[in-house]
Amino acid sequence: MAEEPAPQRYRMTVAYDGSDFHGWQKQTAPGGELRTVCGVLEATLIRVLRQPIRLWGASRTDAGVHARGQVAAFDASPRIPIERMGRAINSRLPEDVDVLEVAEAEADFDPIQHAVCKQYRYRIFNTARRPLELRRCVWHCWDELDTGAMADAASRLTGTHDFAGFAQAHHGRSSTVRTIFDCHVETALPEVHIVVVGDGFLYNMVRIIAGTLAEVGRGRLGPEAVDAALSSGNRRQAGPTLPPQGLWLEWIRYDRKVTD
Amino acid sequence: MAEEPAPQRYRMTVAYDGSDFHGWQKQTAPGGELRTVCGVLEATLIRVLRQPIRLWGASRTDAGVHARGQVAAFDASPRIPIERMGRAINSRLPEDVDVLEVAEAEADFDPIQHAVCKQYRYRIFNTARRPLELRRCVWHCWDELDTGAMADAASRLTGTHDFAGFAQAHHGRSSTVRTIFDCHVETALPEVHIVVVGDGFLYNMVRIIAGTLAEVGRGRLGPEAVDAALSSGNRRQAGPTLPPQGLWLEWIRYDRKVTD
Repeated sequence: MAEEPAPQRYRMTVAYDGSDFHGWQKQTAPGGELRTVCGVLEATLIRVLRQPIRLWGASRTDAGVHARGQVAAFDASPRIPIERMGRAINSRLPEDVDVLEVAEAEADFDPIQHAVCKQYRYRIFNTARRPLELRRCVWHCWDELDTGAMADAASRLTGTHDFAGFAQAHHGRSSTVRTIFDCHVETALPEVHIVVVGDGFLYNMVRIIAGTLAEVGRGRLGPEAVDAALSSGNRRQAGPTLPPQGLWLEWIRYDRKVTD
Repeated sequence: MAEEPAPQRYRMTVAYDGSDFHGWQKQTAPGGELRTVCGVLEATLIRVLRQPIRLWGASRTDAGVHARGQVAAFDASPRIPIERMGRAINSRLPEDVDVLEVAEAEADFDPIQHAVCKQYRYRIFNTARRPLELRRCVWHCWDELDTGAMADAASRLTGTHDFAGFAQAHHGRSSTVRTIFDCHVETALPEVHIVVVGDGFLYNMVRIIAGTLAEVGRGRLGPEAVDAALSSGNRRQAGPTLPPQGLWLEWIRYDRKVTD
């Protein structure tokens, strides 16, 4: 029996429209396996590379959440030259997932543990008209938003804080302290975007931040509501959790690994 | 029995994302009525205005084709002030249809017969990357398009011609002569759009025009192929029929009615 070459660890960057997926993470329901991004990618990798493969991603995006730069890893015996791999995978993927890059990674590369920071964008479609063709990619807000007040509120989120007030209950994390490196508002009318860069996010944290800033933009909360929710850790002082379709995972940064 | 007020004819302008509709025209399949734009609007009008209503539209757009300015007409006894009607209808419509305007029309207004000209736009997404969130609103072309050659081809379509070469067989029209007032190419990278204004269009004519211009843009046909297809009336000299999802009905113009 010919010996298999040692498996190689790969790092893959992926974009997807999350509308028709039950989120990133593989899930089985009574009727069978649900359609998930990880499941679709894994099945395609197995077909293309003709070996058992397990894929794991940096962020477990929820159903309806989109990505422009999700990062995932898998191990496989090399069967296709690395420069042809992305195209080989893409040619067999459905049209709502797109592999942007496949690269050889160090043997211990871990997309979750080695992530330094991530950027999310929450897209609000802010006019009286319906978004129509963008309705699966944005959240529609009819009320005109005060983006100045929102920018003020956004700036209060930067820094290292206990974000318990911005986390859904039962988040299952021992610490709720996170660092937000940047939080700002971009206006590209009729869209208003909330951009957040952080070292990690609690469950639904970006959607709660977006919901809080939207309440500020509508004048229902003042920008200082952010300080109150941060200092009290009380979820009820922050705004509502906005729906998943406006949320985009944009990129995940990894530093060059330092040799042990 | 109280006498009903005389029915009023209304003109309605409608936008929709055609992705999840079996086209504009009402259709019944063995399993029941299919989801059509006209059917959804008619059912909503009946609920809002509480009377039997029949709606008819200017253009029978195919399944997957979108509209920003479809025009339709219906007769109804006034039950709601005209200025509140659009909002009342929209509040009960699904999120992929949007009533832009409802206006009182003259008693004999006919959206089909009185249309003077219409504008269609065919959206081509022209990069190596997949369109992802726009994939239901554009046609994806990987090959880089020569928009100069396309513009040359487009200009040859303007004027009054026999468009038999640009019509699907069995179009069911006695005359295939139509007038194209304008046909040009707009570049909004990564999108390339084909814009056509005409007094009327044969079945699939805009999608065949787009398919011909795309072949020219790819260098598979020269711009003079347009002249050949026009003069021969031979469908095989034009390009393929592009898929419906790139096609947008933009507006329909009506002249002010001249008093008899």
